[in-house]
Amino acid sequence: MPAEPRLLANAIRALAMDAVQAANSGHPGMPMGMADVATVLFTEYLKYDPQAPDWHDRDRFVLSAGHGSMLIYALLHLTGYEKPTMEDIRNFRQMSSPCAGHPENFMLPGVEATTGPLGQGFAMAVGIAIAERHLNATFGDDLVDHRTWAIAGDGCLMEGINHEAVGLAGHLKLGRLNVLWDNNKITIDGSIDLSSSEDILARYRASGWHTVSCDGHDFADIRRAIDEALADPRPSLIDCRTIIGYGAPNKQGTSATHGAALGPDEVAAAREHLVWAHEPFELPADVLDAWREAGRRSAGAHGEWRGRLAGSAERDEFVRRMEGRLPEGFSLDAYLGDLIANPQKVATRKASEMALGAINDLLPETIGGSADLTGSNNTKTKATQPLTADDYSGRYIYYGIREFGMAAAMNGMALHGGIIPYGGTFLVFSDYCRPAIRLSALQNVRSIYVMTHDSIGLGEDGPTHQPVEHVMSLRMIPNLAVFRPADAVETAECWALSLEKQDGPSLLCLTRQNLPQVRSDASENLCAKGAYRLRAASAARKVVLLATGSEVETALAAAAALEGQGIGADVVSMPAWHLFDAQDAAYRADILGGADVLRVSIEAGTTLGWERYTGSHGLNIGLDRFGASAPAEDLFKRFGFTAEAIVPQIVAALQQGDQ
Amino acid sequence: MPAEPRLLANAIRALAMDAVQAANSGHPGMPMGMADVATVLFTEYLKYDPQAPDWHDRDRFVLSAGHGSMLIYALLHLTGYEKPTMEDIRNFRQMSSPCAGHPENFMLPGVEATTGPLGQGFAMAVGIAIAERHLNATFGDDLVDHRTWAIAGDGCLMEGINHEAVGLAGHLKLGRLNVLWDNNKITIDGSIDLSSSEDILARYRASGWHTVSCDGHDFADIRRAIDEALADPRPSLIDCRTIIGYGAPNKQGTSATHGAALGPDEVAAAREHLVWAHEPFELPADVLDAWREAGRRSAGAHGEWRGRLAGSAERDEFVRRMEGRLPEGFSLDAYLGDLIANPQKVATRKASEMALGAINDLLPETIGGSADLTGSNNTKTKATQPLTADDYSGRYIYYGIREFGMAAAMNGMALHGGIIPYGGTFLVFSDYCRPAIRLSALQNVRSIYVMTHDSIGLGEDGPTHQPVEHVMSLRMIPNLAVFRPADAVETAECWALSLEKQDGPSLLCLTRQNLPQVRSDASENLCAKGAYRLRAASAARKVVLLATGSEVETALAAAAALEGQGIGADVVSMPAWHLFDAQDAAYRADILGGADVLRVSIEAGTTLGWERYTGSHGLNIGLDRFGASAPAEDLFKRFGFTAEAIVPQIVAALQQGDQ
Repeated sequence: MPAEPRLLANAIRALAMDAVQAANSGHPGMPMGMADVATVLFTEYLKYDPQAPDWHDRDRFVLSAGHGSMLIYALLHLTGYEKPTMEDIRNFRQMSSPCAGHPENFMLPGVEATTGPLGQGFAMAVGIAIAERHLNATFGDDLVDHRTWAIAGDGCLMEGINHEAVGLAGHLKLGRLNVLWDNNKITIDGSIDLSSSEDILARYRASGWHTVSCDGHDFADIRRAIDEALADPRPSLIDCRTIIGYGAPNKQGTSATHGAALGPDEVAAAREHLVWAHEPFELPADVLDAWREAGRRSAGAHGEWRGRLAGSAERDEFVRRMEGRLPEGFSLDAYLGDLIANPQKVATRKASEMALGAINDLLPETIGGSADLTGSNNTKTKATQPLTADDYSGRYIYYGIREFGMAAAMNGMALHGGIIPYGGTFLVFSDYCRPAIRLSALQNVRSIYVMTHDSIGLGEDGPTHQPVEHVMSLRMIPNLAVFRPADAVETAECWALSLEKQDGPSLLCLTRQNLPQVRSDASENLCAKGAYRLRAASAARKVVLLATGSEVETALAAAAALEGQGIGADVVSMPAWHLFDAQDAAYRADILGGADVLRVSIEAGTTLGWERYTGSHGLNIGLDRFGASAPAEDLFKRFGFTAEAIVPQIVAALQQGDQ
Repeated sequence: MPAEPRLLANAIRALAMDAVQAANSGHPGMPMGMADVATVLFTEYLKYDPQAPDWHDRDRFVLSAGHGSMLIYALLHLTGYEKPTMEDIRNFRQMSSPCAGHPENFMLPGVEATTGPLGQGFAMAVGIAIAERHLNATFGDDLVDHRTWAIAGDGCLMEGINHEAVGLAGHLKLGRLNVLWDNNKITIDGSIDLSSSEDILARYRASGWHTVSCDGHDFADIRRAIDEALADPRPSLIDCRTIIGYGAPNKQGTSATHGAALGPDEVAAAREHLVWAHEPFELPADVLDAWREAGRRSAGAHGEWRGRLAGSAERDEFVRRMEGRLPEGFSLDAYLGDLIANPQKVATRKASEMALGAINDLLPETIGGSADLTGSNNTKTKATQPLTADDYSGRYIYYGIREFGMAAAMNGMALHGGIIPYGGTFLVFSDYCRPAIRLSALQNVRSIYVMTHDSIGLGEDGPTHQPVEHVMSLRMIPNLAVFRPADAVETAECWALSLEKQDGPSLLCLTRQNLPQVRSDASENLCAKGAYRLRAASAARKVVLLATGSEVETALAAAAALEGQGIGADVVSMPAWHLFDAQDAAYRADILGGADVLRVSIEAGTTLGWERYTGSHGLNIGLDRFGASAPAEDLFKRFGFTAEAIVPQIVAALQQGDQ
C-alpha cells in the first residue's frame, strides 16, 4: 500500500468533481463518497493488469451504481490503462469521449459491464461469479481463479432484481463475489427514510450472504471489512458507511451532490477542504506515480498465469472458449440431415430441445437454464447436469422464478467470456426481463433467449400468458436478433444463427403447439436470409403471403385454397426481419413482389409494423387485442387465423384492387 | 363456523380437480393445497357480501397465485355469488366461460384483480391496502374500514417485485394487509431447494413485517395464526405450511399436481381418499347450505354500512370517487386559457407539473408519486403532501427505486376505487414496469404513467437512459393510451384525455428539454382526434410532415424551409395514435393526404411502425440504433433531427417521386 491513501483517493475526487463541472452534467456525489473504498480496492485487493485489460484471469469489477461513472474513469486513468486519456476525461459526457454518462463496456476496456439501469450491474456480477466458478471447475485453479467485485448503491439494492440476484447468489454459494455497498443513506428524492425502512443486512443474511460493516472513510476499517469478506465462504455484502459527496464541505451528505455539478464555488471550497492545490485535470507526479505503481501490482501474477497457460494442455480450448469462437467446423448439418430424412411434427419448443441436444454435445461452452419452466421451455437436454453449489461444473441452472435475475446473470456470464448462456421463460414474460434483454443488445453480448408459448396458440392459460405485442416490440430493440421459426428445420437454422452471432443477443420465439415440418430441404440455411419463398405460386402470382412461426402453416393452407380458385399465391416464411432487411434490394423486391401483387401478412400478434412489408394497400391479418382463455384451436378460429377466414378477405381485397 | 370445515374444504378440492380434469388443463395443486386455509378465511374472517360484490367497504381478496384460479371460482360459487354458475365451472378454460385460465377482474365480480403473472397480485394488494388507508383517513371509519388479503405462492415471493412490494408495505406500515403464503415447498421444476435457500420469514421481518407460521391443514392452527396477524400492527405474512395437491393420495406433495390434470385414476383415488362420494360438479345440499350461510355472514354489516353511508354528509362525494366519475363540470379550460394568454416555453415534463397543479386542485382523488425521480418527473405539486405511515391522508408517495412495485401499487389503488393514481419514472424504465403497465391495460384500470426524458433529448446520460424503441413498443399494448404531446397546451389536453379514460391506463411521454408552445388556440381539445393539422401548407401541398412531441418543433422548421423553396408542406402533430385510428376515414384521409403527397414521419425513435401512416413511398426520419452520451443538441444534430438534415432528404424524395 502506498503511503497516504487519502491523497490517492482525493485524486479521484478531484477528477470527478472537475469533470462533472466541465460537462455541467453528471454525478459527483457517488465517486467522491466511494473514493476511499475504491482506492483500497484498486491499490490493495483487485487483481488486474492495465497493460492487458482482457487478461482472462483478472478479477472482474462491476460499477453497478453506473451513474458514478467518473469513479471508474478516474480509476482506469490513474492505474495506467491506455484509455481513458486525460483528454477523454476532460470531455466527459461529450460526443467524442469514451467517458460516457454511464460506463459502456463497448467504449472502454476495463469497463466490464454497461451499467446505469439500477440493479442490473449487481445481477450481472452474480452471473460473472457463476461463470468464474464454472470455468474454474472445468479448467482448474491454474487457469481460472479470480474474484468478482461490485460497487452498488441504495438504488441497486432497492430494485426488485436485487432480490432475485441475492437469492441466486446465496443459493449457489458464490463466495468469491464481494459487493461493496455505498451506504450513504441518500437517494435522489432525499433521505432514504422517505421510502425505505429495511434492515438490509438482515435481508442479505436471510438469503445466505455474509455481511460486514465498515466506516467507508477509514482505510484500516475498510481493509478489515474486506479481509473478513475474503475469509468467509459465503458471498459478502460489505456495508460501507459513506458520506455522499465527501469532500465538498457545504453539500456533502445531501442529495444535492448526487446528480448535478457542484458549481464553481463548491468545487473551489472542496479544493480547499481537501487541500488539493492543483488545477483541474492536473495530477501531481507523486500521486500519479503511486497510482501507477499500484496498477502494476498484479503484473507478476499475470506473467505467471501466462506461463501456466502456455504450459497447459487445455490452452487452445480455453482460449477458444474465452474468445467466443465456435469450434472449427461447427455445424448442425448432421442433425438437419436427420430431420430431412425423418420429418418431425413437433412444437418448435420441442424442436429447440432437439437442436439443443446436438448443440450441447458439440459446444461444451453452453450453459442452459430456465426461470422455473424447464419442462415447458424444453431447455434441459439429457446430457446436461445441474450447476449447483456442490458442483459448479454442471451446465444447467435452475434459476427459480427469477426471469429478470436470470437474464442479467446470462449477460454476466457472456460478459465474463468462456460461456454461451441460454435461458428460457414464456414469451409473455420477456416483459419481466426486458430491461436485461436491452442490456444484452447494448453490450453486444451473446445471450440467447428461449421464449416459448409464443402466441394465443398456448391456449387455455389466457390473456395474462398470451403474447400479443411481444414479438413485434422485441423486433424494435436495436441489435437484438428476433427469430420466429416455422418448423423443426427453421428452428435448428435459427439456433445456428444465434450461436454464430457473436456480437449480440438472440431471442427465439417458439410454439407450445405442434407444427408440421414445412421444409424438405436443408442444404442451405434459408433463415439466414431472414425471409424466403417457401412455396412458389403455381398460377400467375397475384398474392404474396408473409408469415412467421405457427402461421406459416396457416399461410400454406390459405395459398392452397387460393390456388384452388385459380389465384397464384407465394408463401414467404419470414423468421428473422433483421436479416431480411440486410439483404440487397433485388432479393427483397423478388421476395415481396411489386405493385402487381397483394401482400398479406399473417402473424398472431400486433399488426402495427407489418406495413413495412405489406405497404399501403396490403392486408394484415393479426391480433390487436388481448387474447382469451380457451383451447388453442378455438382461439385461432375465433380470432380468424384459419384459411377459411383469411381467403375471403384476400379475395375481397383483390376485387377491390381491381376496381 | 359451520361444523366440519374439512368437508367444506373438500368441496373446493372436488370442484378444482374435476374442473381441471374436464378441461384437461389447469392447476389443481394449489386449490387443493390451500382449500383448508381458504375455507377458514371465507367462512370466518373475510368481510364480503355475495349479493353485492361491489360493496365499497368489503374486504379485498387477491389470489396472487392466479394459476390456482379454480380456488376463487369455487369460493365464489360456493358462497353464493351469482357468477360463476356450475355450468361456468364445468366450462372452466373454455371459450364461453368466465372461469378463465387465470382470474380476470373484467370477467367476474368478486375477482378483485387479474392475476397470473407472478408477484403482481401481491404488489397490487399493497396498493389496495394503501388505498384503503388513504380513504379511511379521508372519509373515516364509518365509510372505509376494511382489510386486504392475498394468497401468494413461492413464485410470487421469489419474483423481484416481491422485494419492492414488501419494502413499500413495511415502510408504510400497512397493518391491515395480510398475506397467506402457500408454503408447499414445490415449484414447477420440482422442490424449492433446486433454486432457493432463503429464510423467507427473516427477510420479511427485516422489512418491517410481522410473520407467523401455521399448519395449513389444521383449522385451529390456521385460526390462531390469522388471529395473531390481526392483532399485530404490522403487515403480516402468514406462513401456511401446506401439501400441494392435498387429497390426491398418490401425487400430493409433488410438482405433478401443479399444472396438469390429475388424470381419471388419481381423481378417483382422491374421491375415495377424501370420502367424497359425489359425481363431478355435484355438491351435497348440506355442504352447499353451510357455504351459503357463511356467504351471508356479513350481510348485516353491509346493511349497517349502507345506513351509515345514507346518513353521511360525504355520501355523494364518496360515491362519486368510488365510481370513478370526475366532478361535474371538470375542465382544464381556465388553465388552458392562461397558457394561451401567456405562452410557455417549457419542457413537457414541466408542463405536466403545471397541468397537475390545476388537476390536483380540482380532483381530490389523485395520488401522485415517483420511483425516486420526483424532481425529474415533476410529479409533485406544491399542494400535495406525502402519504406516510404517520399520515395516510397525504397524496404523494415516495415509492423509492421501485418502478415495478410502483406501477403494480398504482393498479391496486385503481382497482380498489376512489383514487386516480399517477406515477413517474424515466421513459426508458417503462421497461422495468412494463409487465404492470400491461396489467393496467388488461384490467381496464385508470393508472396514469408520467414518463419523462422521452428521447435522446435527455442528452448526456447516454444510451442506457435514452428510449429508442419505447414509444412505439408501448403503442402496441392493447388498451394503453400512449400520448406524446408537443407543447404545454397538448400536455394539458393529453392529461385531460387520460383522466377522462375511465376504462384503461394512459402513458404520457414527456421531454426533459424545453419546447416552444406551438399552439395558440385551445378552444378545442385537438389531441382528442389523435392527430391534427397544426400548420397548413401555404403553397400547394406536396408534403405532409407527421411528428410527435419534441419533433413537432423540428417539423415546423422543416416545413418553413420547404416553403422557402416553394414546396407546400403541412405539419401534423400526432400525439395519440390510438385516437387517430378511431377517427372516420374522411378525417384520416384529409390529414394524411393521398398519393399526390409525400408523407414524412419525424420521431426520435424506431421507424418500424410509422409505415402505417407514411405508406410504401413515404420517408421515415427516426432512430433505429441506440443513442449516445452527449448534450442533447449535439445528439439531435448527429442523428439528423434538424431541418437542415431533413429537408434535403425530402427534396430528394420528391425528385425521385417525379421521375
